Amino acid sequence: MAPRRKKIYEGKAKVLYEGPEPGTLVQYFKDDATAFNAQKRDVIEGKGVLNNRLSEYFMTGLTNIGVPNHFIKRLNMREQLIRQVEIVPLEVIVRNFAAGSIAKRLGLEEGTPLPRPIVEYSYKNDELGDPLVPEEYIIAFGWASQQDLDDIVALALRVNDFLTGVFYGVGIKLVDFKIEIGRVWDGDFMRLIVADEISPDSCRLWDVKTGQKLDKDVFRRDLGNLTDAYTEVAKRLGVLPTNTQPIKPTLIN
Amino acid sequence: MAPRRKKIYEGKAKVLYEGPEPGTLVQYFKDDATAFNAQKRDVIEGKGVLNNRLSEYFMTGLTNIGVPNHFIKRLNMREQLIRQVEIVPLEVIVRNFAAGSIAKRLGLEEGTPLPRPIVEYSYKNDELGDPLVPEEYIIAFGWASQQDLDDIVALALRVNDFLTGVFYGVGIKLVDFKIEIGRVWDGDFMRLIVADEISPDSCRLWDVKTGQKLDKDVFRRDLGNLTDAYTEVAKRLGVLPTNTQPIKPTLIN
Repeated sequence: MAPRRKKIYEGKAKVLYEGPEPGTLVQYFKDDATAFNAQKRDVIEGKGVLNNRLSEYFMTGLTNIGVPNHFIKRLNMREQLIRQVEIVPLEVIVRNFAAGSIAKRLGLEEGTPLPRPIVEYSYKNDELGDPLVPEEYIIAFGWASQQDLDDIVALALRVNDFLTGVFYGVGIKLVDFKIEIGRVWDGDFMRLIVADEISPDSCRLWDVKTGQKLDKDVFRRDLGNLTDAYTEVAKRLGVLPTNTQPIKPTLIN
Repeated sequence: MAPRRKKIYEGKAKVLYEGPEPGTLVQYFKDDATAFNAQKRDVIEGKGVLNNRLSEYFMTGLTNIGVPNHFIKRLNMREQLIRQVEIVPLEVIVRNFAAGSIAKRLGLEEGTPLPRPIVEYSYKNDELGDPLVPEEYIIAFGWASQQDLDDIVALALRVNDFLTGVFYGVGIKLVDFKIEIGRVWDGDFMRLIVADEISPDSCRLWDVKTGQKLDKDVFRRDLGNLTDAYTEVAKRLGVLPTNTQPIKPTLIN
């Protein structure tokens, strides 16, 4: 049995617990799926197990190419050890093709290639529905500095090049994705690293040949079984959990 | 039958012919394999067909992420249409792990991870055996300017992020690779683009699990059948030529 431990934060899809060492946390992946700012919600058996493995897989790949991120190691089916960070209160979104809010906002057909990858920001605030914000707001309100944003864009574009490659190798188009960024301190020196998760919850993934959606839009738009879609992604990447049976969550507290 | 056409250049593994439009060339992939500055040579049936397809695949992926390159379209099993460039007389090598010359030169065990990706240059000159050259030589002899080299490093690192991702997705480690860079002019404006080819002839590729080599080292070191190794790479990436039977080269001129 897991020892009692302190819950630090509970979000829509994950729980953060105090970690074994100072500066670490345990990130627990739930099966809960939410969309449209949690107005639509369901429990998708097995999703947490898949996302734990997939986020491990992508973060490890980023570590390999020298993109700093919070991942330390996977602990079990649903948990991974991560570095504790101070989260920058932004969702950093990189778009290669129009889909979702940019398609609606600009009247673009979904799937339209963008002239170049576009990096945009939402202010992380559930009550406000994570609104899109221009850089000017971010700097004026002190959520990040201009230097931070320059570093964040550079990180986000490297993540995009790498992930686009990973998915290209297995016949999947990376339409867009969201990352979060955290601050860590090495003494007085502050660094920005990739945090949160990278999984089909946070990417739009379309099969190159059929256009089939293999991401959370399957849930948002009622297009079929979400676990099947995520399992397909994991299979193509050779990330096959030994046991994808859902584990009964054992949340303490 | 192919029409008679003008041969522009014949290298060890490829032939360049005049293209149908000004500013274009036809790049023909031969089955010839050479190593150790052509002291070792053989004909490997089917290699040209595979490299034509694989180079198309990687260059198309680079185009998708906005890395400019010479590829226009594949014409047939062994030929592709490319932009004519003025080749910068350098082999631009990106290394993620020690192998080949750097391992020998620095006494590193092959497979040792490097502290970060290392970009190095060889001067393209067969008589001299493509010697490693520091940036100082390149600038002093006018092969490229400091600004060119800055741009070349940025291009090479983007190619590395992307290709590392592509191979990561299919269980292959990108140990190192070589690209060549060409100049093109849009009016007075000079741009540097990726040229030559990207294929298992120009990469070191190791299976992540077994360490098996899937690149030209199979030929260099007599480790087995080269076509089998390249076919394995092509299969994993879903790049399966409809017909991998070797075509009799029909070189004219």
